Amino acid sequence: MCELLGMSANVPTDICFSFSGLMRRGGHTSHHTDGWGIAFYEGSGCRTFHDPKPSATSEIAKLISNYSIKSKTVISHIRKATHGKVNLVNTHPFVREMWGQNWVFAHNGKLPGIKKRKLEFFHPVGNTDSEHAFCWMLDQIRTRYPKPPRGRKALSQLLQHLTDDLAGGGGIFNMLLSDSHNLYAYNTTKLFVLTRRAPFGEAHLIDDDLAIDFCEETNTTDVVTVIATTPLTNNEAWMALAHNRLYTFQDGVIA
Amino acid sequence: MCELLGMSANVPTDICFSFSGLMRRGGHTSHHTDGWGIAFYEGSGCRTFHDPKPSATSEIAKLISNYSIKSKTVISHIRKATHGKVNLVNTHPFVREMWGQNWVFAHNGKLPGIKKRKLEFFHPVGNTDSEHAFCWMLDQIRTRYPKPPRGRKALSQLLQHLTDDLAGGGGIFNMLLSDSHNLYAYNTTKLFVLTRRAPFGEAHLIDDDLAIDFCEETNTTDVVTVIATTPLTNNEAWMALAHNRLYTFQDGVIA
Repeated sequence: MCELLGMSANVPTDICFSFSGLMRRGGHTSHHTDGWGIAFYEGSGCRTFHDPKPSATSEIAKLISNYSIKSKTVISHIRKATHGKVNLVNTHPFVREMWGQNWVFAHNGKLPGIKKRKLEFFHPVGNTDSEHAFCWMLDQIRTRYPKPPRGRKALSQLLQHLTDDLAGGGGIFNMLLSDSHNLYAYNTTKLFVLTRRAPFGEAHLIDDDLAIDFCEETNTTDVVTVIATTPLTNNEAWMALAHNRLYTFQDGVIA
Repeated sequence: MCELLGMSANVPTDICFSFSGLMRRGGHTSHHTDGWGIAFYEGSGCRTFHDPKPSATSEIAKLISNYSIKSKTVISHIRKATHGKVNLVNTHPFVREMWGQNWVFAHNGKLPGIKKRKLEFFHPVGNTDSEHAFCWMLDQIRTRYPKPPRGRKALSQLLQHLTDDLAGGGGIFNMLLSDSHNLYAYNTTKLFVLTRRAPFGEAHLIDDDLAIDFCEETNTTDVVTVIATTPLTNNEAWMALAHNRLYTFQDGVIA
């Protein structure tokens, strides 16, 4: 299985600390060695880094863990290949443009039979179940809403329906998705969440001997939510997200 | 104006040397300081790096110029903003998926009136003329060919028609485009090309005191074509590409 990492914050925030922990799971503290990727939103722009090499030893991952890129929404993924070869084209997160917005998706799990679902507008470049599921979801959204619906609720409701549908076939569907405005999270088996806000304290990584005092890095009004397949720190109160519920995060809180 | 850099090769080749020269034009030897980007194809996969900061002082550009990413097709761009703010969303190259292929586009010039052209499937995320032109071209291709046409010629002919059309409105349209199979180049004012093949020799950058002996880096069967807005080396025979002609490069040669 793969591992997911997401962040939603009310101010542009760097993810260096959390990413440092995650990247060690790509070859050091765990076996997710089949590539990694990360997408940072900066306004409506989005920049991605992908590498089919293990994150624990990747030069690019090393840069990302040391170089502060400030973003309000981040999606990252480290891969343990189950479907699809180990190569760049199968490396999450996947990106598509729809409605003039960048959509980013990363998935952990398996989706038997997913490739039987027909696609129209969006097509996978690689051969993972995950990218097929992403294209299918976008197709469904675009068919229902050729233009963005008014208000957040309509889209969240449709996404709840689509994610339930994908999970319903007996698959494992843990995912992070963003349309550049919100971060959506859904899981059938495992996703944890942690919200950091004032009073900030010290956090210590599980996967590395690294601690950070967020008091020194933040303002008192900052709200930063981190979502991960398993907790990344050993001294904070991570909570499991409920299964089969679509969570919508905006500015660090559940919208 | 911006500057373009492209590469087409018959074997995966790194572009560190050429990119080292180009990145210095983003603040050291020239004034293209409004961001830069690069896209590397690896098979049908594509990885991009974008940075709204000047390339000459960018930490990420420094990594790219030292870290060997081997690719048969590369498109890069350094920006001097004329239309659209300096931010990530306006940073070339732009990427879209069509027919399950990654399409990459970078442009130098200006296209008056381009935003009056209606779009259907593809929409810009930023507000440059360039991204609008890219979306319009893809829309036209998709409308004509909902699925990829057989043979290379049909697509090249359509691209010649579309690029002529865009250039026809009195604009400046120098561009590099790839559909992951070919590298397309078109210019109305300035693009130079250089093909390196055996016997390889030494090349010396114009923008830096840096030389490389390609004999030591290559095999005798390698063919590597580099395309740039202005020559990058001062001891090789760069040639100007003809204006208003669509060139199609595959495996380092004109197809």
